[in-house]
Formats: sequence, structure tokens, C-alpha cells
Amino acid sequence: MIKQVAIDDTLPIAIGAGVLGTGGGGSTYLNRLRLNNELRQAGRPVPIIQADDVPDDALVCAVGGMGAPTVSNEKLQEGREILRAVRELEAHLRQKIYAIVIGEIGGGNALGPMITALQGGKPVVDGDGMGRAFPELDMDTFMIYGAAPAPFTLADAHGNVVIFERIGSAKQAEEFARSLTIEMGGSAGLVMPVMTGAQLKATIIRDTLSLAKRIGETVLDCRARNTEPAAAVAELCNGKVLFSGKIIDVERRTVQGFARGKLVISAFDRYDYQLEIDFQNENLIARSNGEVLCAVPDLITLVTLDEGEPIGTESLRYGLRVAVLALPAPKELKTAEALAVVGPRAFGYDVDFVPLPGDLL
Amino acid sequence: MIKQVAIDDTLPIAIGAGVLGTGGGGSTYLNRLRLNNELRQAGRPVPIIQADDVPDDALVCAVGGMGAPTVSNEKLQEGREILRAVRELEAHLRQKIYAIVIGEIGGGNALGPMITALQGGKPVVDGDGMGRAFPELDMDTFMIYGAAPAPFTLADAHGNVVIFERIGSAKQAEEFARSLTIEMGGSAGLVMPVMTGAQLKATIIRDTLSLAKRIGETVLDCRARNTEPAAAVAELCNGKVLFSGKIIDVERRTVQGFARGKLVISAFDRYDYQLEIDFQNENLIARSNGEVLCAVPDLITLVTLDEGEPIGTESLRYGLRVAVLALPAPKELKTAEALAVVGPRAFGYDVDFVPLPGDLL
Repeated sequence: MIKQVAIDDTLPIAIGAGVLGTGGGGSTYLNRLRLNNELRQAGRPVPIIQADDVPDDALVCAVGGMGAPTVSNEKLQEGREILRAVRELEAHLRQKIYAIVIGEIGGGNALGPMITALQGGKPVVDGDGMGRAFPELDMDTFMIYGAAPAPFTLADAHGNVVIFERIGSAKQAEEFARSLTIEMGGSAGLVMPVMTGAQLKATIIRDTLSLAKRIGETVLDCRARNTEPAAAVAELCNGKVLFSGKIIDVERRTVQGFARGKLVISAFDRYDYQLEIDFQNENLIARSNGEVLCAVPDLITLVTLDEGEPIGTESLRYGLRVAVLALPAPKELKTAEALAVVGPRAFGYDVDFVPLPGDLL
Repeated sequence: MIKQVAIDDTLPIAIGAGVLGTGGGGSTYLNRLRLNNELRQAGRPVPIIQADDVPDDALVCAVGGMGAPTVSNEKLQEGREILRAVRELEAHLRQKIYAIVIGEIGGGNALGPMITALQGGKPVVDGDGMGRAFPELDMDTFMIYGAAPAPFTLADAHGNVVIFERIGSAKQAEEFARSLTIEMGGSAGLVMPVMTGAQLKATIIRDTLSLAKRIGETVLDCRARNTEPAAAVAELCNGKVLFSGKIIDVERRTVQGFARGKLVISAFDRYDYQLEIDFQNENLIARSNGEVLCAVPDLITLVTLDEGEPIGTESLRYGLRVAVLALPAPKELKTAEALAVVGPRAFGYDVDFVPLPGDLL
């Protein structure tokens, strides 16, 4: 388990977070540049702690960026909006936040919390609430397993900060925050949920920051040895390479604050053998000839064939040569309670969740 | 000047607020029923104070309902949402609110604040920030003349309360609150702005609650004497009866949280002599043959010809026999600063504001 994150660690973490991002969670490239810059200015690494290091009665908060990755790649953050949201929440609650929690380990949202932690002089907990990326904020283990959605805060690049003080449900929080995020220009900083150390320990998916780093190191190692990284990542994560081929069609729109669409990949040797993937910020379901090969919450990630570079849904384009990874989701996402929120039916697909063959989690 | 509001006062105030509402501000009928019920339960009248009775360093807040009147007529309030929003704001600011201020004297929003005041055991200040009704929350003299838009709160019938803690401008507040109001179902309770007594005294339009009551008494007096009330109201308010006729066309949609549209009234004796009125919740501009006869911020109000009953834009329909009143706006709305926010150009009309003939305000 890692104890700190320094500049040398940000590349493997960014690659691993990209793999866990299943196409979403925002750009790791941008947030890695921002994090490196913050690390240089601070002159010290980010302290990483375990959930068990947090006192039961201390307060922690998860943080992340909200919005469509198509937007947040072009509409840059001001840089301190999430810290402002944390500070306003501390003032409102009249209690200090003990540590920063990664809301979503997938994509740039793995890196952003370390920036906030450095700015605020706080440690980051190794773990997160998704074990991947999900499009909606109610889709995390903290709230699935009982954390209250409110109070939470949303902040934008212009200095606006909104405190959602009483909110009836996590789904309601998602609807309100999504609507305000759109009004804020399509991306915003989110601080949610606020939990005690005891709640954190009961609900967090542990060690996912360490996992992201290990995935990235595996990819970098393959690159150094000139081997294709996809198989090595699949092996590390107990998953498989679902498909290899060329992207031959992408349909993508930014609607209701999400990047929605689908893509088609054709096998190199057999043009009629195709894989279709639907996404909503994240890749949700992979089908071939109508048969479901992998579905949310299991992870479907596209990486470039040669370099193993994860591809965000906002960067999909015709002609990319890709491998499609199918990785089993953490066990916390596969209970009946969790599947009701993050299973295929929660996204409107009329199929039951079926674990990947050989899934031991 | 009135000192209190009891059950006998609510009818004239509702009629007067309807006249000042220029078609908007929500239903006086519903809020009058709610206020009467609250007065009966409380067993005491609402104390009314003057702005000068508020200590300079005390805090007051304006309150009102936000949303399209087409919605709030059908989606009823839970009843205590605005009080909840006031209480949350007091807790957030760690300071009690000394008195409730009427955000908008037009329509049901004249009556709602008295319900909140009774529930919260606070007095209501005689006056408001609009002297009429306006469709957007940044259109009040408090913020036009310098009150900060934040913190403000929005609350819905389901118990959700949101505190907008830092907001860059009143216009930004309008955009955020509108978007969230739509997400809350199209109507919500608003507490905004929070001011000191000193700020209140410098910016409030005084005595408009008393004015509403006088207008209503004038209408009731005409009804008792079987004379048409429009001319008497026009005389009381230094305005005029712009037109009398029958509504022959109404075009109305509920879009982006507003009731928008236009209506055409035809003179009784000359079918080719018509008046056209555009509205956005409130009536904004009255034209005949392309000539502007009255424009915002001056008041354009339709009343039924016989009874002088004010007609909300949500209740317009073919065949109604109406008189159209044109009343001069309070002087606070006709400065250059105010016209930039509430003049015809602020609503997209390419005309300068021209005071009504004989306007002495």
C-alpha cells in the first residue's frame, strides 16, 4: 500500500485511473498536469493514509469533478474551486475535515482530490466510493450503504459555492447537482458525501489508489518491454481482453450534462465480427450480435493496442486500434443493494447482471 | 399606514396585490386561503412594522415564491418550506432574522410572507423590493441598489433546502435558482436577499402593503356601489384605463420555468382596434398597431370589467371582458440604474422607456 504520492507516481496512477475510468471520470492528462504543478509548488508529496487511520468521530469528505468529460476538457477549472467548497462546508458545519476521500478512482477524478488535499494541508485516503467511474453522483458505495447525501457543496470556476443543506435522497441530489452543473457551464467541483471515520470504514472500497498505481506500472513495464499491455492488465485485475480491433463508428452527443453515445469496433481480420459499446460518460454495456459480453458495474475499458493508453469516451474516434478490457467490478458493487443503483437495469438495459466468467470477487 | 393584518384585511390586500401583480406574482386566491387558515390557527393578526422600526444592524430577509404561476396553481406548497429556508439561513448565519420582508408585492407573493411571519413569530415590514411583480429575482430594488445576492436559500415542498453561499451576481443567482426551481418541479420557496436594517431602509419601496390594501378597498367599494372599478383604481394610482374590450386570442407556453406568451384584446365597438400585450409571468408591454402604449417597469394589469378582479397571466382566456390598467411604476424603478435591470431593453424590446403621460412619480 502506498504511503505518499510524489511527482514520479503521477504517471502510473494516471494510467491506472484511466483504465479504471472505463472511459469517464474526466481527463487524467489535464489533472495530472495540475497535480504535478501543485506538487512542485508544495515541495512535498501528498500523504496517503488508510481508512483505518481515520478516527471514528472525525469528519471526512469525498471530492471530485462533476460534468461531461467532453466539457471539462475544454472548460478548464479555476483550480481552487473544490478547496473553496471544502472550506465553506467546514465553516457551515463548524468542524474541520480530517482527510480528503477520492469520490471516484476512475479518470481524472483520481488525481483531483490530491490537488485539493495539498492545497488544504490534508491527507488523502487510499480507496474510493466507486472502484471505477460512474456517470451519476448517487452511484457510490458511501451512499449505497447509508451515508447521507446532504450537506454537500458544488462550486464553479467563478467563485460560486452552493451548499445543499437538506436533500431527500442521493438520487434527488444527483438531479439537483446535475441541473446546477449544467447552469455552471457543464462542469463543477463537488464535495460529497460528508462522513464520519466510522461510516468511511464501513463503506469505502479500499486500496484503489494503490491498485491504480499498480495497473499503471504494469502498462509502463509492458511499454518498456515492447509488449502489448492489455493482456497484462487483464491478468493483474482478474479480467480478460474482450476484443481487439479498429473503431469504425462513433456516435456521441453532449446531452443533459452527459456525454452519451455508442461506438462500434470491428475485428482486424473479420469485418463482420463487431463489438458495440454504449456509453454515458462511462462505457456501460458491450454487445456483439446482440449478445451481452460485459455490463455495468463490471468495467469496460478501451486502451490503445500498442501503448495500453486508456481512451476516454470524449476521445473516441474513427480508426483507433484498440483492445477492449473487461474487468470484474469490486464485490461491493455486486450486492443486490448496489446492483439496484449501478446494475444494467439502473441504466435502462433490460438484462440482469451476469458476472464475468471466472469472476472470483 | 397599517399596523397589522387580520382576516378582514386579506381580501382587499389580495385584490390590491393582484392589481400590482401585473398578471404575475402567483395566485392571490391560493395564498389568501393559506393566510386565512394560518391567521385562524394563530389566533392573532400579523404585526406590520415600518422599515424605520428595524435596527440598522438587525438582519432581515425578503421571501417569496419562485416559478411560473401556471405551475404553482397546480403544484401546491407544502406550507412551511419558506420557514424552513429561513431557519436554515439563521442557523447558517448564526443570527436571528428580525423581520420578514415582502420580496414582491404583486400577486400571491404579497400574502405568502405573512404566512411565514406568523409561523416564525416575526413581524412583516410594510413595503417591498418591486412595487409590483417581476419575472426574475434579480429585479428588485434591494439588489439593484447594492444588497448582496448571497447567501440565499431555495426550498421545496419535499423538505429540500439549498443555501447559495457565494454567488457572483444577482443575474447569476437568478440563473442558478431558476434552474434549480425547474428541477424542484417548477415552483419553490425563495429567501433572498438577506440585508441589514440599514440596507433595507436605503432600498425598500415603502408602504406598498398599505397601498395594496387601499387599492383593494377601492375595488370593493366600487363593487358595493355597482360601478366599474378600473377608473377608480387608475385615479387612486395616478394611472389610466388604457383599453377596454374582449380577449380574442391568448398564446401561452410554460418554457424555461416561465409562463410566456401574448394576448390580443379587441375593443367592444371596433373589432379592428386591438391591443396586444406580451407577458413573461408578468405583462411587459402593451402595443396597438405597433405603437407602444405602456411598457415595463410601468404596470399593465388586466381586471375584469364589471368586478375589477385582477387576472393573472395563467388565467387569461378567450372571451374575458376586461379593462387594461396602465399605472406608473414607483420612482425607484425609473432611475437609470433600475431601468438597466427592469426597463424594456432588459426584456429584449428595442424601445426606450417612456413614462406614462401625466406620470408625476
